[in-house]
Amino acid sequence: MISSIAYGARSAMSKLERMEIERDEPRANEVRIEVLYTGVCHSDIHQVKNEWKNTVYPCIPGHEVVGRVVTAVEGGRFREGDIVGVGCMIDSCRQCEPCTSGDQNYCEGHNGWLATYNGPMTPAGMTEDGVNTYGRDNTFGGYSDTLVVPEDFVLAIPEALDVKAAAPILCAGVTVYSPMKHWGVKAGDRVGVLGLGGLGHMAVKIAKALGAEVTVFTSNPDKIEEAKKIGADSAFIETDKTSLSELTGSFDFILSTVPDKHEVTPMLKLLKRNSMLIIVGNLDIVDGVDNSQLAFHRQGIAGSLIGNLAETQEVLDLCAKHGIAPDIELIGIDDINDAYTRIENGESRFRCVIDMSSLS
Amino acid sequence: MISSIAYGARSAMSKLERMEIERDEPRANEVRIEVLYTGVCHSDIHQVKNEWKNTVYPCIPGHEVVGRVVTAVEGGRFREGDIVGVGCMIDSCRQCEPCTSGDQNYCEGHNGWLATYNGPMTPAGMTEDGVNTYGRDNTFGGYSDTLVVPEDFVLAIPEALDVKAAAPILCAGVTVYSPMKHWGVKAGDRVGVLGLGGLGHMAVKIAKALGAEVTVFTSNPDKIEEAKKIGADSAFIETDKTSLSELTGSFDFILSTVPDKHEVTPMLKLLKRNSMLIIVGNLDIVDGVDNSQLAFHRQGIAGSLIGNLAETQEVLDLCAKHGIAPDIELIGIDDINDAYTRIENGESRFRCVIDMSSLS
Repeated sequence: MISSIAYGARSAMSKLERMEIERDEPRANEVRIEVLYTGVCHSDIHQVKNEWKNTVYPCIPGHEVVGRVVTAVEGGRFREGDIVGVGCMIDSCRQCEPCTSGDQNYCEGHNGWLATYNGPMTPAGMTEDGVNTYGRDNTFGGYSDTLVVPEDFVLAIPEALDVKAAAPILCAGVTVYSPMKHWGVKAGDRVGVLGLGGLGHMAVKIAKALGAEVTVFTSNPDKIEEAKKIGADSAFIETDKTSLSELTGSFDFILSTVPDKHEVTPMLKLLKRNSMLIIVGNLDIVDGVDNSQLAFHRQGIAGSLIGNLAETQEVLDLCAKHGIAPDIELIGIDDINDAYTRIENGESRFRCVIDMSSLS
Repeated sequence: MISSIAYGARSAMSKLERMEIERDEPRANEVRIEVLYTGVCHSDIHQVKNEWKNTVYPCIPGHEVVGRVVTAVEGGRFREGDIVGVGCMIDSCRQCEPCTSGDQNYCEGHNGWLATYNGPMTPAGMTEDGVNTYGRDNTFGGYSDTLVVPEDFVLAIPEALDVKAAAPILCAGVTVYSPMKHWGVKAGDRVGVLGLGGLGHMAVKIAKALGAEVTVFTSNPDKIEEAKKIGADSAFIETDKTSLSELTGSFDFILSTVPDKHEVTPMLKLLKRNSMLIIVGNLDIVDGVDNSQLAFHRQGIAGSLIGNLAETQEVLDLCAKHGIAPDIELIGIDDINDAYTRIENGESRFRCVIDMSSLS
């Protein structure tokens, strides 16, 4: 066993605190990684607070991980010392139709995909036969000095990327890139981004890299200028009815990155015919969808969940090629509880990344 | 002017009654049609009762019209005596992007498309400048002995179709065909149809003609056997949780034809990854969409509005080729108010068609 130091929560009411954990030694197909930097995702907060009612404790979050290979797989893709990344998944069933099509993020296997922390998507306790194909109902994430991960779920971090800023591409980046790819965002398209947090600011940069004209909609007046600074062509307060009215029917694609339940019909009105509103910021119930708006313009609403491994590598490479990276605040692990509060208040700019050298 | 006999409503509270109206003589590009058979669409009832809050009175419904050409356009596509059809639209702006792309049903012109009855989609009173590009804020539909329609909006009724049964293809048929075409329903797909009324029963027949395996979901136990009789491979009560649970994740496409607001998440659960639920039966607000379901399977919900002219001709030809037609009850115009009650109670099998020779 590997003795490891981590930061996690013991219950939904707990602050995160230092804890000592044990990890299995790497199997033949697994890589041992020394964690260098871990991004703080808004979903870490949802999970730690058990807002999705499925948290297993202790909960050690972290699924935006950049690290250095300590033990490589013999004859594998990586060597000791390589800088690598781990995103939201560390395994999947590898046998279902989505897995064999390369969409591990939609794994329909017995327990779904194995999350980097908090275990399988469908824990054994939720299956009829109680079988756990991964052998564990909890996994410990990247708020830790070490990760052990099957090599196929490890991504290469391109040299051109700043190692400190790369981590958030592994979740925030691919979560916004995957739907843009799936629904065919292309150069010249007009893309709207609702919400300018961790996901939203990456959506702006990636949509620009794809050649789109990008407009941000935010509830925070301070973020109008910030949106333009990071590359948005325009930005509006989402409740500014006059401005929004002038934009009616002008967008090819809108991505909602807001982490809470919100109205969707005002965004639908901005879409062109045959276009989609994709919600990636939250998993809440969507109410008040005006089907008259949908029908008269053949529009739709859809969901999208992170991205597959190939897309994750693609978006890392795209960011390297275009010289873009998340805007980050580097924090020490001791600052994590304060960071959670700031993220919940929309005060971070735009993604907190933990310097894991602060963990000892 | 043409003196014409019609059946219509004088207010939202009125029964339909006989009335005498005047129509303009056909212009050079217009065809005068002697109406033979007119289908009764559920939307006729919504419109007559002003349930969409936009009804202009008197309201003379009817947008599933089969008739005989009385006056043809010189050098045009039709000759006197030809059997032709008119659907929901009789004109559009012909200049906007949707119109020039052939999607007249999504016309974004000043007043939208001109409906066969009740006038333009956006009446002059709803536009800022009050301009009416069609010159009229009301049109009189096919519950009448005569129609005058621009030739491009007139469809050819294939000889192989039973002239009495063809009318409902012009709205119900194309309304279910258009989304199947747009979202790529193909041979071997598994298609679900929610609701087995006028639209639903045509959806079953058309999906079967496209080579799909078709399952009906209905709230009415009597319709289980009826669904199979008209060609469905299977049929279930929509609240039968045990059966539905076994069908989880097995459909490529589901079409909701229910004319009232209903839950959508139980239907979403039946869809495969990357699939869509299309709502064509009503224009109500959609509540309670589980975005977690959408995200974990990259599914979506969309709307669709009738179909364009080319699709309308395609579906007429498809029905002729496959020997399929709506199942109709032929009624006299005097029976129309009773028919409305029976349709609202889900008692018609499956589409009422008015024999217009009963109008005098």
